[in-house]
Amino acid sequence: MALSGLPGTAFIDPFGNNRSEIESLVQQVTLHILDYLTQAAGHQPLPEVKQGVSARIPDQPTEMAALLEQLWQLMAQAMNPAHPGYLGHMDPLPTTASVLADWVAAALNNNMLSVEMSPVFSQLEPQVLQELAREFGLPESAGGSLVSGGSLANLQALAVARNAKLGSLRRGIVGLEKAPVILASAVAHTSIHKAAMMLGLGTEAVVPISVNQNSQLQPQQLCDRIQQSRALGQHPFAIVATAGTTVTGNIDPLLEIAAIAREQGLWFHVDAAYGGALIFSQRQRWRLAGIEQADSITVNPQKWLYVTKTCASVLFRDMAQLHHHFRVAAPYMNSDADWTNLGEIAVQGTRHVDVLKLWLSLQHLGRQGYDRLIEASYRLTEQVLQEIHRRPFLELASHPEMNIVCFRGCPSTLPSAQWDTWNANLQTYLQKRSWFLSLPAYRGQRWLKLVLLNPYTDTCHISQLFQVIDEFAGLA
Amino acid sequence: MALSGLPGTAFIDPFGNNRSEIESLVQQVTLHILDYLTQAAGHQPLPEVKQGVSARIPDQPTEMAALLEQLWQLMAQAMNPAHPGYLGHMDPLPTTASVLADWVAAALNNNMLSVEMSPVFSQLEPQVLQELAREFGLPESAGGSLVSGGSLANLQALAVARNAKLGSLRRGIVGLEKAPVILASAVAHTSIHKAAMMLGLGTEAVVPISVNQNSQLQPQQLCDRIQQSRALGQHPFAIVATAGTTVTGNIDPLLEIAAIAREQGLWFHVDAAYGGALIFSQRQRWRLAGIEQADSITVNPQKWLYVTKTCASVLFRDMAQLHHHFRVAAPYMNSDADWTNLGEIAVQGTRHVDVLKLWLSLQHLGRQGYDRLIEASYRLTEQVLQEIHRRPFLELASHPEMNIVCFRGCPSTLPSAQWDTWNANLQTYLQKRSWFLSLPAYRGQRWLKLVLLNPYTDTCHISQLFQVIDEFAGLA
Repeated sequence: MALSGLPGTAFIDPFGNNRSEIESLVQQVTLHILDYLTQAAGHQPLPEVKQGVSARIPDQPTEMAALLEQLWQLMAQAMNPAHPGYLGHMDPLPTTASVLADWVAAALNNNMLSVEMSPVFSQLEPQVLQELAREFGLPESAGGSLVSGGSLANLQALAVARNAKLGSLRRGIVGLEKAPVILASAVAHTSIHKAAMMLGLGTEAVVPISVNQNSQLQPQQLCDRIQQSRALGQHPFAIVATAGTTVTGNIDPLLEIAAIAREQGLWFHVDAAYGGALIFSQRQRWRLAGIEQADSITVNPQKWLYVTKTCASVLFRDMAQLHHHFRVAAPYMNSDADWTNLGEIAVQGTRHVDVLKLWLSLQHLGRQGYDRLIEASYRLTEQVLQEIHRRPFLELASHPEMNIVCFRGCPSTLPSAQWDTWNANLQTYLQKRSWFLSLPAYRGQRWLKLVLLNPYTDTCHISQLFQVIDEFAGLA
Repeated sequence: MALSGLPGTAFIDPFGNNRSEIESLVQQVTLHILDYLTQAAGHQPLPEVKQGVSARIPDQPTEMAALLEQLWQLMAQAMNPAHPGYLGHMDPLPTTASVLADWVAAALNNNMLSVEMSPVFSQLEPQVLQELAREFGLPESAGGSLVSGGSLANLQALAVARNAKLGSLRRGIVGLEKAPVILASAVAHTSIHKAAMMLGLGTEAVVPISVNQNSQLQPQQLCDRIQQSRALGQHPFAIVATAGTTVTGNIDPLLEIAAIAREQGLWFHVDAAYGGALIFSQRQRWRLAGIEQADSITVNPQKWLYVTKTCASVLFRDMAQLHHHFRVAAPYMNSDADWTNLGEIAVQGTRHVDVLKLWLSLQHLGRQGYDRLIEASYRLTEQVLQEIHRRPFLELASHPEMNIVCFRGCPSTLPSAQWDTWNANLQTYLQKRSWFLSLPAYRGQRWLKLVLLNPYTDTCHISQLFQVIDEFAGLA
């Protein structure tokens, strides 16, 4: 096929004819990436966007040299989670293994839709997911899917729950006598509401269960709301427990919720998008006790397992349920006797090869590597707590159970109506000094949120951070 | 934070302390990728999987050197769309720009969920999508979202359609008096049925409209089915037209369907996942006439725009509909006066930075580059058609409108009951000689499908392919 009118480097010639130009391009990009990442501590954790690039589609091809300049400009204005002062979100510095595996995945451009489009990866993914399910104590029947983000994991889990409990695969839910509802804590992630909307239940179908001071669902309230909801003529069919709430990283009482779900015949989903990583910690995995009773679990290696985005998973206690209650077959596709076309049992069809980076990271770090990372992160959390306790003008939003600390200043010299502004100003003050903490709204107030994911954030950094906070408090 | 017990290259040190080890690793992977891609014509287009790797999670870290050997092994067993004989699916050899941009995106690990997690990319994406919407002739109010795959694009489009037409965002659809149905051609993509299932309508809520010999929806049948469906007490609310059917690449009569949708007050969605690329062809874009009247369009740069997977988009005629009928706000998130947190208006939350590779590819190739690629691909299709017409033992499944040719052998020496086997054997025969054509089931028969995407597949290759087919036909 003629390639006239196209830049010589538009594609990588499979016969090798443009290898030297391609090699030079790849080396330039690779060197820039290396320079950027190995000097990440010298850039802002969250730079201001000062200069965008033009999105207009040009008629003529653009020289790659000019485009590379724009690419560097974009890189300089990206979120920089490798910076030790980047503490604001559950977005980690990624493992080297996952960055390299993603580079390979992009080059291969395989497709998890079907076995023919990703022969070796369509075999690897179910195997890795089965191993992951085993870590959580799920039975041999268990397995799962990788999906592009945790919202899709929760969506797919609740779709299977809905179909399994209400038989809605072919017939849908219009005409059901009772409105199906999902029970979840009042601080469950917004993706649960989005899922309820997508599934045709509506966002109001998520019945909020009140939480205690530590943002944990109250089991008695759960029981009451199930009865109440039935008395109202609704049909509760699923309970969502959270292991790692969005703002404060707390864990719902999984054992008690599991028992209630079993007694009441409800689907038990655990949104362990963040907290699922604890399964790799010898010392902390007790916190997840009860998760082995789940019908489905969301766990996102893209968070505390340090895998590049996206890498999220939904595990099912019994893969047969996925096949019976969710599968929509593609009539034109070839089927393989041994391996499933994964697009038939996932909410997505065409999908990136995310399993490669998960597999490579798990192999490279091993259980021990993750255990150590999690332990170190708990030690740093302890230090942060001590710093906060030492300062009477700071208060905690909850008692941390993970490596997330949510606190705010409530300086006695100011009326409480001004505390939100004080904390917002503190955030800005910190940001100007290369500390990025986020400022979530929670319980009607503004808080500072700190996620201790970065293994290069050390005790000295934490001491410095609190010195800067003191400095601001003295000034303010 | 201590990194003891972890491999020295587990992370890329943002202070540069492990730069030389990281550099050596990156160079090894990069060199292997370059070797693989610049010699792709020498590998099988679709290798057999002979040896997997262990998915077991090790207790101890594994040496990267050993893992790289396994990585090369996986690469050797991947689908190889860069091979000129890889013709079986709509999965392209990707642009150099998209491969490089994905390498950068992995390194940056930003998150399209919110402005704070991808400051510059959360600005770039809506701009690029607005430009794309403009290409399709949509008005100034238009825009869109990138999503991880076409199934999600169709899902999001139909969710907005359902919510806009039935007011189901908060209240859901359970209590509706009439069952909502979607009308689509009998050969619409399976993701439409999956979307209907996800949305709580059930797979049976997709009313199949019969097609003509060229796999195109018949407008009169559409009108009849709308009336019929209403007479049955159903509520038709959306029409899905296809521009690029899965098996044969045909295009529904968009202008006529647009008129029917308007008259009947139905949402008009065009699934142009594959065919949307034609908008960049001066000579072929007439084929999409009518698409400018769509309420929503799925168009997937990951297919005929040669962008690495995933890169799919859903465009909306009026972005206000997305905000009013779909948005589920995250109460804890900071909002920016100027830029939307994209996780609030998309089916996904956390999302990979796919806009970078789309932007870079569009800039690098320009409209002209894509125009030339599409033209070349039509010329090759013409050659294939001539080869088929010359052979009385071959028949076409439809008259191609794009670069997809679906045909089969129907040798007069064999009873027609044996033709499926003959074609399956031909596929195997070709595959052993480094030609990969897929073997879709269609109209109750097996066909050979050929997608002429690869710019390195030339007229000599096509002549050779048909010589091999003749060879098989002579032998058989």
